[in-house]
Amino acid sequence: MALAKRKGIFAPTAEIYGGAAGLYDYGHIGAAIKRKFESVWIAYFVERMENYHMIDGSTVLPEKPLVASGHAALFNDILVGCSKCNTYFRADVLLKDSGIDVSEGASAAELDEAISRNKVICPKCKGSFGKARAFNMMFDLYLGPERNEKAYLRPETAQSVYLNFFREFSISKKKLPLGLAIVGKAYRNEISPRQGLYRLRELTQAELQIFFDPENWTLGLDGMRDMKLNVAMYANGGKQENISIKDMIERYGIPQFYAFHMGLINTFYTDVIGINSERIRFYEKGGNEKAFYNKLHMDIEVDVESWGGFKEVGGLHYRTDYDLKAHSKGSGQDLSVIVGDKRLVPNVLELSFGVDRNVWMMIDCLYEKTEARSILKLPKFLAPIIAGIFPLQHEEALIHKARELYLSLKPILNVEFDMSGSIGRRYARMDEVGTPFCITVDYDTIDKDSDRYDTVTLRNMEDKSQTRIKISDIAAVLLQASRFDPSKFSGISNYVPYADDD
Amino acid sequence: MALAKRKGIFAPTAEIYGGAAGLYDYGHIGAAIKRKFESVWIAYFVERMENYHMIDGSTVLPEKPLVASGHAALFNDILVGCSKCNTYFRADVLLKDSGIDVSEGASAAELDEAISRNKVICPKCKGSFGKARAFNMMFDLYLGPERNEKAYLRPETAQSVYLNFFREFSISKKKLPLGLAIVGKAYRNEISPRQGLYRLRELTQAELQIFFDPENWTLGLDGMRDMKLNVAMYANGGKQENISIKDMIERYGIPQFYAFHMGLINTFYTDVIGINSERIRFYEKGGNEKAFYNKLHMDIEVDVESWGGFKEVGGLHYRTDYDLKAHSKGSGQDLSVIVGDKRLVPNVLELSFGVDRNVWMMIDCLYEKTEARSILKLPKFLAPIIAGIFPLQHEEALIHKARELYLSLKPILNVEFDMSGSIGRRYARMDEVGTPFCITVDYDTIDKDSDRYDTVTLRNMEDKSQTRIKISDIAAVLLQASRFDPSKFSGISNYVPYADDD
Repeated sequence: MALAKRKGIFAPTAEIYGGAAGLYDYGHIGAAIKRKFESVWIAYFVERMENYHMIDGSTVLPEKPLVASGHAALFNDILVGCSKCNTYFRADVLLKDSGIDVSEGASAAELDEAISRNKVICPKCKGSFGKARAFNMMFDLYLGPERNEKAYLRPETAQSVYLNFFREFSISKKKLPLGLAIVGKAYRNEISPRQGLYRLRELTQAELQIFFDPENWTLGLDGMRDMKLNVAMYANGGKQENISIKDMIERYGIPQFYAFHMGLINTFYTDVIGINSERIRFYEKGGNEKAFYNKLHMDIEVDVESWGGFKEVGGLHYRTDYDLKAHSKGSGQDLSVIVGDKRLVPNVLELSFGVDRNVWMMIDCLYEKTEARSILKLPKFLAPIIAGIFPLQHEEALIHKARELYLSLKPILNVEFDMSGSIGRRYARMDEVGTPFCITVDYDTIDKDSDRYDTVTLRNMEDKSQTRIKISDIAAVLLQASRFDPSKFSGISNYVPYADDD
Repeated sequence: MALAKRKGIFAPTAEIYGGAAGLYDYGHIGAAIKRKFESVWIAYFVERMENYHMIDGSTVLPEKPLVASGHAALFNDILVGCSKCNTYFRADVLLKDSGIDVSEGASAAELDEAISRNKVICPKCKGSFGKARAFNMMFDLYLGPERNEKAYLRPETAQSVYLNFFREFSISKKKLPLGLAIVGKAYRNEISPRQGLYRLRELTQAELQIFFDPENWTLGLDGMRDMKLNVAMYANGGKQENISIKDMIERYGIPQFYAFHMGLINTFYTDVIGINSERIRFYEKGGNEKAFYNKLHMDIEVDVESWGGFKEVGGLHYRTDYDLKAHSKGSGQDLSVIVGDKRLVPNVLELSFGVDRNVWMMIDCLYEKTEARSILKLPKFLAPIIAGIFPLQHEEALIHKARELYLSLKPILNVEFDMSGSIGRRYARMDEVGTPFCITVDYDTIDKDSDRYDTVTLRNMEDKSQTRIKISDIAAVLLQASRFDPSKFSGISNYVPYADDD
């Protein structure tokens, strides 16, 4: 958190007023990482897919759809308050923090029972607790001049997609699978917001809803069957194991459309983001831990040091036809569609990612601090600054040449000019925010008699190697490095679900 | 609006439930145009500038900063209600709609007087009106387990920037000008939301706050002095005139830092977006029409047919040191900074754009419908789909080749495969959503004996011209066309405010 503040990654919202629990702002380095993560997520999971689209929806939703979806009644946490000091806690978190194991979906009665059986007292004042009760996590607000039209801030982007499904199906290829994704804000009145962008009251989600017919899923597992995943299956008591996709399907009966996306997500974290595969696992939630709309529910977890172990950064949720049927009933509109000869209400597979959690996770996992150097090993296409441009010495001719190069690149690339301190210190500043290249203008660069005239030193952050490069080649090298090309990553180059056969 | 719905540009939020006033969702074509507009805005106004940065901030703000900024007390519209049918109206809009001219900043008493003097009655039921009163347009919400921590949805992104100014100044170059921008949501409980993405309850803003010292503004007007602008100045009775920047400065005493940004904005609309310069004007607000924090306030207006004339799509606001001083006072933190030998509270120049309004404006202004064709003349770098890929006929070998090309491009470019209907109909579908290129695979493409083997027809939307191009060259041509390069636009290539002189 200290690094985050010092380097402009993020800080509490309205910090000059003392901040506000569960609300964060991104400084310019963090905002750049967040925006780039979102673009890469969109390119990888959505844009290269046929019949998959980004849409955008209002974060304020009228009351009716959230009654129909079940959120108005069921999007609850269980709250318990100290009868002495009046501090409130999320009951399951209170118990877990006291070392008592409870399931995430435990009822108020079960939690009351666990609190009294274990004689849990208020960690603040040692008082005793009142009765646990359900607490709805949605924020309500009131529209209109009389402030009487009840609305909610959406608790997930998914609902905006379901509300748009029918129109989007009608104006696109009229086929399944149809993928619709939103990257946007969601809001939850968390009882106990936590540090580290983990449990926020305002968060950014990147969610993809895949509408499909489970009886007609044609996308194969070619090249993926032998990929090994870390899974903790409910049927196996949540025990972690390393298993191939092929074996997992056989042993646990995971449907192919689901297994395929586990492989896709795993590749995203290992190959695209560069997280060690040992730190990624799929944790299946079963019984009453599952969200009320899910048939098959796995958390995507990453082992993050500052979070104390494996924590959720996303989820893969087989929501069946629950949502579309709920909105059909709530709105009175038939949301079934005809594909081929079949009329059906499509099923939904949801890929859900918490963007803020992923930003924190990347900074934690990719930051390496040794005695020699501190370096943020982001992939080049996620780097907030692509190159630092330095005159070797504080000398007029060198400065002039370096400024000229800087001015020519700045309109198209995020480069930074720096002439303060030694070259070593300038390298170190760039290393710490994940800048992949540093470019130094030296005496050879401006010496017309040298065969190194109009060349500069290009230093690579990763291995500190230096090469000499022509000034005229720099723009192309940097543009190439900053561009994310999903077809470069193994196992996903042909991820287009069907040929158009009209 | 019909086109917007049919083509997936936008539609009312939760339309299957009857919609909600002032809330809209973007379909996939609209969402792509919006995202690209935002990227281009960022590249043009922010990214190519030295010491200018994008940041990101929570849309939920605690109460204190919005009390300090004046919004809790003053961010009001004047509301008037029919005493018979209880319908509420924004008083100034009610009067304007009745053909009565009132200033936007008129007080409740003035509006009451105008209503009774002109005997305005309820347009719905002909009832008479009660007393006008101030109505605060911010949405309030309540955080925490007891729902007792009052907060607001921010009414403008600007406040998030002011709250981050001091940290950003400290971690960046510690110089002025410093530019900080946010593209994000803002919320206003509009009394009478209007059609056409004009007056929304949830909107996206693109706002740049430039912190500067008005006594040390060094950026010149080179190449801009003779640029002609349409302006309607308060001192000239709001009469529209076409005048050079140089003459405007002389005649009206517009400060250079302000005039420079008028030129920059004008170039954005004419050269980047491609709006006819006759349709753009700067309308100065004076007297009580100005926002309470502005010293010099111009609306950026575009003449939009579906809005019935010139309407605001953005604003250029000289907010002085009002905001930072207000937050210094409210938070007790000294927000002055030292630059060179001088301690000062920087002044703020705000460039504010309504993204939704700009999307609507572009679609209105750039859509050309003749008997022969309907075409959305977006610049190539704003096109939601960069190219359509078609087999000439519905024949296996042609389809196969076209699919192969499609699959090779899709991971890196938003191309669309289409084989339904005649080539003419496929062109027409692409024209209507602004797709700049169509690529046709024909018999020559697959004929190994032809000298046109492995070439395709590239059709340009703008003039319907067709050229023959090698398949291997297509990716480069399309990538080049979709990339926005701000240095290509006149008058702005050297828009970097100062040389680093540490």
